[in-house]
Amino acid sequence: MNLILLFKSDFIEDTKKVRLQGRRLKHILEVHRASVGDQLCVGLSEGYIGHGVVTGLDNKVLEMDVLLSRKPPDPLPVTLILALPRPKVLKRVLLTVSSMGVKQIVLLNSYRVEKSYWQSKVMGKESLKKHLILGLELARDTVMPEVWLRPLFKPFVEDELPALIKGSFPIVAHPSATKPFPIHVSPPVTLAIGPEGGFTPYEAAKLVSCGFSSFHIGERILNVETAVAALLSRLS
Amino acid sequence: MNLILLFKSDFIEDTKKVRLQGRRLKHILEVHRASVGDQLCVGLSEGYIGHGVVTGLDNKVLEMDVLLSRKPPDPLPVTLILALPRPKVLKRVLLTVSSMGVKQIVLLNSYRVEKSYWQSKVMGKESLKKHLILGLELARDTVMPEVWLRPLFKPFVEDELPALIKGSFPIVAHPSATKPFPIHVSPPVTLAIGPEGGFTPYEAAKLVSCGFSSFHIGERILNVETAVAALLSRLS
Repeated sequence: MNLILLFKSDFIEDTKKVRLQGRRLKHILEVHRASVGDQLCVGLSEGYIGHGVVTGLDNKVLEMDVLLSRKPPDPLPVTLILALPRPKVLKRVLLTVSSMGVKQIVLLNSYRVEKSYWQSKVMGKESLKKHLILGLELARDTVMPEVWLRPLFKPFVEDELPALIKGSFPIVAHPSATKPFPIHVSPPVTLAIGPEGGFTPYEAAKLVSCGFSSFHIGERILNVETAVAALLSRLS
Repeated sequence: MNLILLFKSDFIEDTKKVRLQGRRLKHILEVHRASVGDQLCVGLSEGYIGHGVVTGLDNKVLEMDVLLSRKPPDPLPVTLILALPRPKVLKRVLLTVSSMGVKQIVLLNSYRVEKSYWQSKVMGKESLKKHLILGLELARDTVMPEVWLRPLFKPFVEDELPALIKGSFPIVAHPSATKPFPIHVSPPVTLAIGPEGGFTPYEAAKLVSCGFSSFHIGERILNVETAVAALLSRLS
């Protein structure tokens, strides 16, 4: 937690004092080991970042005077379409993607995605938000990514994707592509990453017919977490 | 396990038949769900890759006839110097680094590395090997990375590092550097990545005086796993 993410509901008097309890208090006590007078990096959800000075602290509540003075980091101009990974991996991927600055994520079905993944507790709205917040807190960002859940591949690709990719360079990472993944691409980009094992030939062809260019990422097979970080890094 | 990694001790008759038990057998039964006659991707440790045809299989032993016909993927021409992360993260980082093709890894102490990390069970020789093998099996590689453990920063940097970086472009990722991390660098590269929180100014200065160029990786703070994948991807 390199930034304490604040919400409007945390503010108690005017716009300068916040009161925190729960997870953030626990983290500030146990990891930051803060005391009264200490300064912490803070940011207002969807707003500016700055610092907070601890004015009161015990094991039940923390109070801070906050000053929000600068913009959060620029977003990464990439929309990520990701075949839904297994729940344990999804948690880490959400954190990674959020920390790298992606602001729009589509979790998509694919033939090789196990149906049970869609029923996982991780997929609940509050749970998704929790893991995205961990990424913002890590990267010192305040702007929440938007997540779309699309459990049907074909209707999404046919009905929604053409509008989504408009004005962007759409790329799909696919093992059997002949061209290597580019080093640098003019933003914005829409990046589609398949499941472990890749999109099926049918799925890859659907994306190509929608306007996607297909690139391979080398001879080595990477796990989803590594592939996401490695490919987003090429596009930043 | 996209490749079954074989060792010389697995071969039973001439050089063509192997007998497997334990972890690899379990994986082949439960994940690949293979039967007699099926073909699996295999590779000989430090040697060629190819395929194996299952000739016998029960819940105690598997036998395969193997044909090794081609080279493993090229190594990534990067030596990675990494401040020792906490054990749970180290496991995943070893897998990632091994899957991305790094063949030399130095796990280094830093002021911000907790001393207890050096005593972790993950640091045992067999444990390190286990996690590196998972990376090779994922990426279909056969060449084991070498890991150096260096629990003393200063003697390593003063006595060993000058020889290690000879002939390479040495880079350190450091938050307070003024230049952005390059998109492409002529290989080979020696890449140093600090702990969460970064190398101390003293440590960064020692690396620079040894010949390292210092680059930042942007305004966002990334966790070690993401930073490793993102930076190695820029150098591949």
